[in-house]
Amino acid sequence: MVERFDAVDIIRIKRDGGTLSPDQIDWVLDAYTHGGVGDEQMAALAMAIRIRGMGPRETRQWTRAMIASGERMDFGTLSKPTADKHSTGGVGDKITLPLAPLVAVFGVAVPQLSGRGLGHTGGTLDKLESIPGWRADLTNEEIRTQLEEPGAVICAAGTDLARADKKLYALRDITATVDSIPLIASSIMAKKIAEGTGTLVLDVKVGSGAFMKRLADAQELARTMVELGTAAGVRTSALITDMSAPLGRTVGNALEVRESLEVLAGGGPPDVVELTVELAREMVFRAGQGEPDVAAALHDGRALDMWRRMISAQGGDPDAPLPTARERQYVRATKSGVITEMDALRVGYASWRLGAGRAYKGDTIQAGAGIEIHKTVGEAIVDGEPLFTLHTDDPERFERAVDVLDGATIIDGNAARSRGSVILDRVS
Amino acid sequence: MVERFDAVDIIRIKRDGGTLSPDQIDWVLDAYTHGGVGDEQMAALAMAIRIRGMGPRETRQWTRAMIASGERMDFGTLSKPTADKHSTGGVGDKITLPLAPLVAVFGVAVPQLSGRGLGHTGGTLDKLESIPGWRADLTNEEIRTQLEEPGAVICAAGTDLARADKKLYALRDITATVDSIPLIASSIMAKKIAEGTGTLVLDVKVGSGAFMKRLADAQELARTMVELGTAAGVRTSALITDMSAPLGRTVGNALEVRESLEVLAGGGPPDVVELTVELAREMVFRAGQGEPDVAAALHDGRALDMWRRMISAQGGDPDAPLPTARERQYVRATKSGVITEMDALRVGYASWRLGAGRAYKGDTIQAGAGIEIHKTVGEAIVDGEPLFTLHTDDPERFERAVDVLDGATIIDGNAARSRGSVILDRVS
Repeated sequence: MVERFDAVDIIRIKRDGGTLSPDQIDWVLDAYTHGGVGDEQMAALAMAIRIRGMGPRETRQWTRAMIASGERMDFGTLSKPTADKHSTGGVGDKITLPLAPLVAVFGVAVPQLSGRGLGHTGGTLDKLESIPGWRADLTNEEIRTQLEEPGAVICAAGTDLARADKKLYALRDITATVDSIPLIASSIMAKKIAEGTGTLVLDVKVGSGAFMKRLADAQELARTMVELGTAAGVRTSALITDMSAPLGRTVGNALEVRESLEVLAGGGPPDVVELTVELAREMVFRAGQGEPDVAAALHDGRALDMWRRMISAQGGDPDAPLPTARERQYVRATKSGVITEMDALRVGYASWRLGAGRAYKGDTIQAGAGIEIHKTVGEAIVDGEPLFTLHTDDPERFERAVDVLDGATIIDGNAARSRGSVILDRVS
Repeated sequence: MVERFDAVDIIRIKRDGGTLSPDQIDWVLDAYTHGGVGDEQMAALAMAIRIRGMGPRETRQWTRAMIASGERMDFGTLSKPTADKHSTGGVGDKITLPLAPLVAVFGVAVPQLSGRGLGHTGGTLDKLESIPGWRADLTNEEIRTQLEEPGAVICAAGTDLARADKKLYALRDITATVDSIPLIASSIMAKKIAEGTGTLVLDVKVGSGAFMKRLADAQELARTMVELGTAAGVRTSALITDMSAPLGRTVGNALEVRESLEVLAGGGPPDVVELTVELAREMVFRAGQGEPDVAAALHDGRALDMWRRMISAQGGDPDAPLPTARERQYVRATKSGVITEMDALRVGYASWRLGAGRAYKGDTIQAGAGIEIHKTVGEAIVDGEPLFTLHTDDPERFERAVDVLDGATIIDGNAARSRGSVILDRVS
């Protein structure tokens, strides 16, 4: 009876624009994790938070309470520093794949605990699972061992980290309370802090293919997360990067692994290389390993070698051929000129419709499905020239993808060839 | 899948301060009634409505959708007009008991579908159940028969009226979304309109013992409800009445029946008589039966005779002695002067603690428990004179009641004797 009245009191305070005390936040998230506060009460509270907001102190306490709701990992006894990267998600974002081995080359262990994709953004684990034999699920002991040697691990996040977050995230998804900066920031940071990384670099995406559409919102989210990490003793910084156009030239699981291998071999699209190198520099530097020539490790084979060891350590065969889709189809330019826009969201949806993504948790995905982008923003194309190649196992999906892509790309007969840096801002 | 996205879209519109379309309101309440929209989604929507509000059109549609979620009664084929009264609830509010038979005297059938009490406000059915043999549960056919002859019925509202309201009310209670004027107004009016009354007079209480503490809020609630009733073809008007002090001189079930009998016999406290007569006039007039001398029927025995027939029709023995509590205790004045304040909320809580009310649905209550008020606002009292008599079967409850009553009454040595009208405003 006391508990019930407390939940209603807490909801009422936030409903009326008040500030929740640390004890109230601890109590409500603990009770929610254990069932004493129901989904309907948390939904009302989440809506009140979505509308009224939370101040910095409340958000810090909310994050601490989320961490306390689950297991907390600790890599403090490793022989080297740890650094992790988190991206808020975008179309064609395969950066984790070349980044983790590249950073590990410089003596920084990378505990990259990742997820599967839902909707139009792909999941890192889905991409790696297109490599024959590779497995995502490791025990904590296996993670620790692999962080010592070879030094990088990309695997599934354990289900016991930040347990309140898992319940709350599923609830927010069905109650229109996802797009709250304090709730987004605390959700991401609670998991990352609970993972036990010493350094964290955030890649906050902005643009049509990202969750944040406006630069000011991305900056606020980045500042909030950097503040939360710093307050928790994690060296945290953020890059704010462009997600108006897809990243690189491939979208889809095996297609993105192939592009990542090109980057690790010293090639690959300039935007993917730029972002990989910048994030690696930031991680190595913040982890206290100075300012080595990170890019060199992409050209001299050290990063690729680390990748091979990392994949092998998890049962993957780095030499096995990657899966390909059974069917392909071109989408051609209908005009000559320079590409000035390519809507990342639509390209992401089209790839999803080709079979690369899931509509529901547990859906199967096609490893080979996705989109190759032959010409991207800032490049010239001639009427009739291939713009995209669509890949899928089910040819009936082509039409749905073509529908989504119609009008996604703008070609201007008079524009100049140019594309700016993918990095828009930095927060630390 | 379509349904799920619709619910989130609807929540999002209201979250952002937008206006819901009639189709959206119909869909969401229908889906909520049938389980397609879950409690967590409705909780988020209710919080968004609580914070953002609903406009008059939305509130009308919300009310219509609540009515459509359940059974709708129709008394259009009765041989006489119907009129009902609804009070928003107060301490010592036994008005329904003398009012229903009084109005029936004038050829207006009174279908008074009522509820049980929860918390510090009593329930009309609880009061009548202190009469030996009386039963609250009637079939629709029994209600109709009794409306023809003798012409008044006070009974339990069927569980099939406004089914969405029952679910939503329970949800609002635990999610801090009760005190929303559009939600309160639509909840009350959906049930009353579904009951099928032709005329409805609302008694909107304001003051410490009422849900509405401020006159402006009570006026807004009254206007909203009158508008909803009128839009649904029910002749609706409202009195706004004072609930800063308890109504009459008794609080508690059998105690309030006894006071009601005094009023029906031409006596009783002036505030109870004033409100009963004013509400009866309003009901008879709005129901098209002109402006007869309503008060006369209290003095010449017609109202008491109608009461006896109404009680007998439902198995009650109007001549049986009413239950009394086993134990009594005085609370005495500690000062001489005129009573200027008597906090209705505290008196209600004290009566509840003596056993007259429930903490939870289904709790048993004591028919004889409650409080007699010997001197009330505007009356003089002498130091040491009895102010209250407390009634309960459990003497250990006295102390808890006395604690609550301490300081509830203010006695001023220099104030003049006076108490204004209980009727503060009218809305039609």
